[in-house]
Amino acid sequence: MALADTLRHIDDQQAVYVEQLKEFIRIPSISSGADTNQRDGISHAANFLVGQFERMGFSAEKVQVCPNTNPLVLAQSAEASPGRPTILVYGHYDVQGVDNLRSAWAVDPFAAEEMDGFLIARGASDNKGPSFAHIKAVEAILAVGDQLPVNLVFLIEGEEECGSRALGQFVAEGGLDRFAPLLCTIISDTSMYGPDKPSLTLGLRGIVYTEVEVYGPKQDVHSGLFGGIVRNPNQLLVDALAGIVDKEGHITVPEFYAGIWPLSAREKSLYAALDVDEEAYCRELGIDSLAGEREYSLLERRWTRPTLDINFLSGGSPRTIIPAQAKAAVSCRLVPGQDPERVRAALEGHIRNRLPEGTRAEFINQHISPAYHLELDHPLVESTLRAMRVGFEIEPVLTREGGSIPIVVDIAAKTQAPVLLVGLGQITDNWHGPNERFSLRDFHRGIRTSAALLHQLGHGSQS
Amino acid sequence: MALADTLRHIDDQQAVYVEQLKEFIRIPSISSGADTNQRDGISHAANFLVGQFERMGFSAEKVQVCPNTNPLVLAQSAEASPGRPTILVYGHYDVQGVDNLRSAWAVDPFAAEEMDGFLIARGASDNKGPSFAHIKAVEAILAVGDQLPVNLVFLIEGEEECGSRALGQFVAEGGLDRFAPLLCTIISDTSMYGPDKPSLTLGLRGIVYTEVEVYGPKQDVHSGLFGGIVRNPNQLLVDALAGIVDKEGHITVPEFYAGIWPLSAREKSLYAALDVDEEAYCRELGIDSLAGEREYSLLERRWTRPTLDINFLSGGSPRTIIPAQAKAAVSCRLVPGQDPERVRAALEGHIRNRLPEGTRAEFINQHISPAYHLELDHPLVESTLRAMRVGFEIEPVLTREGGSIPIVVDIAAKTQAPVLLVGLGQITDNWHGPNERFSLRDFHRGIRTSAALLHQLGHGSQS
Repeated sequence: MALADTLRHIDDQQAVYVEQLKEFIRIPSISSGADTNQRDGISHAANFLVGQFERMGFSAEKVQVCPNTNPLVLAQSAEASPGRPTILVYGHYDVQGVDNLRSAWAVDPFAAEEMDGFLIARGASDNKGPSFAHIKAVEAILAVGDQLPVNLVFLIEGEEECGSRALGQFVAEGGLDRFAPLLCTIISDTSMYGPDKPSLTLGLRGIVYTEVEVYGPKQDVHSGLFGGIVRNPNQLLVDALAGIVDKEGHITVPEFYAGIWPLSAREKSLYAALDVDEEAYCRELGIDSLAGEREYSLLERRWTRPTLDINFLSGGSPRTIIPAQAKAAVSCRLVPGQDPERVRAALEGHIRNRLPEGTRAEFINQHISPAYHLELDHPLVESTLRAMRVGFEIEPVLTREGGSIPIVVDIAAKTQAPVLLVGLGQITDNWHGPNERFSLRDFHRGIRTSAALLHQLGHGSQS
Repeated sequence: MALADTLRHIDDQQAVYVEQLKEFIRIPSISSGADTNQRDGISHAANFLVGQFERMGFSAEKVQVCPNTNPLVLAQSAEASPGRPTILVYGHYDVQGVDNLRSAWAVDPFAAEEMDGFLIARGASDNKGPSFAHIKAVEAILAVGDQLPVNLVFLIEGEEECGSRALGQFVAEGGLDRFAPLLCTIISDTSMYGPDKPSLTLGLRGIVYTEVEVYGPKQDVHSGLFGGIVRNPNQLLVDALAGIVDKEGHITVPEFYAGIWPLSAREKSLYAALDVDEEAYCRELGIDSLAGEREYSLLERRWTRPTLDINFLSGGSPRTIIPAQAKAAVSCRLVPGQDPERVRAALEGHIRNRLPEGTRAEFINQHISPAYHLELDHPLVESTLRAMRVGFEIEPVLTREGGSIPIVVDIAAKTQAPVLLVGLGQITDNWHGPNERFSLRDFHRGIRTSAALLHQLGHGSQS
């Protein structure tokens, strides 16, 4: 049966799907909330999704992985066929809170009001709208009487905004094993490069985060009484972190750059072809000029180069004392080829080496996750681009992102299958901020893209 | 008439004076308090002092220098004689608060309870006891029928614990001019070198304090989105402050050491003769070893060498962000010969020079005060030591202190007369802490010393 029928149905049902999305968005499923209303929102949203899946004949359940976590919604298409590939779709139904931003919202954040072609609501773009697009695509395929071209598993979690603890445990404990082998995972939780720039994101940076505490006297002491005879932990910390990124933007931790895969000439040329408005960056950041490694373009620096930032400094108080301790948080964004544990150890070793012998220092709250990268010549790249052309009727672009989504790496590693990052939101959608919004046009084009992609993936494996 | 009579009277009245001191101490004259009880305490303590002075035939008044400040108590001996030198005695009747330490006190902090020869109370040692000793000395001289050997001015302020604003203005505006010329000022607001170590403090270090803020993007930004293209203010600040004190304890700010008067061989040898227990310092500080300039002894480092400390560091938050700003407080202790304004400018210039061109940085909340030093061969040094020998019946020591008392410098500069720093409290009296205490024996020996010193100063000028 023809994809064309499905696309026509999606076009016909546009208004209906928007109303259903509004219903989903109106459920205040705030990720971590102390009060009963918020816990109700989580439960209500999970039930709503289970209902959506059951209506399509999927088997669906709420999975309570461990106590005091929000349930996963796990749904599986009926009549799984060994002849068809299996695809995982990941999304999340939990949303950020709004309380401390409430007055900055122009509308009720859970009223799902339409304005100039956007839905203005908490969670509209992050991530209810994009997740829901995939559900509606499946619904449309089934509505026109088609068999699903693939076996489908949906995994919609409820804790993306608060650490994905349950999902992490579910994946780590082999919760996805029974669906193996997967052809791929589809995730729409990245951003498009810009309006009318449908984007397949080939890479995400990894992360190493560590906090370091340097200790001095057992309590803050008077700098008049003890200045000149005691080492100052603020000074020790500052000395250890000085020049860790040099004036040219290079990171001076030994072995930091070890193993990095070179950026292919083809990928480099793709990014060079994208529009970049440096002045717009400066305006947004409120700075006069950008910084960093001059030998790399702006997008290369943001997407393909590792970074190190001192996120946090804290020591003493603004009085004439020598502090008992000083603390910093340092994090690195990693790129493909870097071993996060090796980077973490190198960073810790570098800082320790620069502290005088006998200094007491502790490294705490460390976490790491490698970068994610999909090779440009992976066959699914072309399949995805083809689907986006059908869905958007615009030539799509290939991108990377500078942020880190550890669960993407975990899913890719555990399933041994690529993750297709097909963002439907915009970087200007104000995720986590007031007046979050989602383009209804992109919602519609996203449903079309999803339907086309499922067809592509089904046909691709049959050819 | 003989000093011996006065001393005998002081010995006889010992218990009486202690009861009067308790009465003074029981007035909760907390320096800066929002509630009415605390404002009442200030007023009550000032009135109590005025009463003490009037009982001795002094003219005494509360001076309200400017609105919303605590009054100075200014008292002047009757029958000022041009043939006798004029001496200023400075002290303060305000005390630190206790609220956030209340549970750590073994007794009511304003009950003035006796324990093992100490009065345990807020303000007992800082500074009601030592100030009151001078008043009781005058009372004793007058009680045995002696004329005062000197003209006396008492200036007891009520804001030492909150910035001495009123006193600073009073001195700056020439409030002391009408008593000129002064032979000297006596202040008992330093510490003795140890128990049974009556001490004349020859020097105090000065201070330069500045806060610096370094600015980056207009708000904290995501390190994934912007890491690699924006300068991180934490890194800029750390780079600017790195090595500002080197591993050998030397300060690397150019011209920092300019003008320092060399320590005389005689003063050096005096300090070398004092007992120093380095292990006790380490125990108190909770550290394994002391630091600083190896070419100077521990006491030289604490008293006669300038220092620089990063008191405070603050920037960003312990999350993966690049902060909008980073802040530090840096302060220096200065020694005789250093020009504080020159040091302040050198410090600011050094930090600015180490920030990349175009970095926005602000220096705020700066304040400065030079060091104070009394020459070892000043004739009043020997007079004071003689009085201490009489008062304590112990050989006194000469010391300096590492802290700063800006008002001492202001008074010395404005009156063009030396300040005799005769501390009566101990470093272990726990000023500003819980269970502050003052030795009743030192209170008694302090009264004797004060009487002997007034005799010395009077006779000295007549000879």
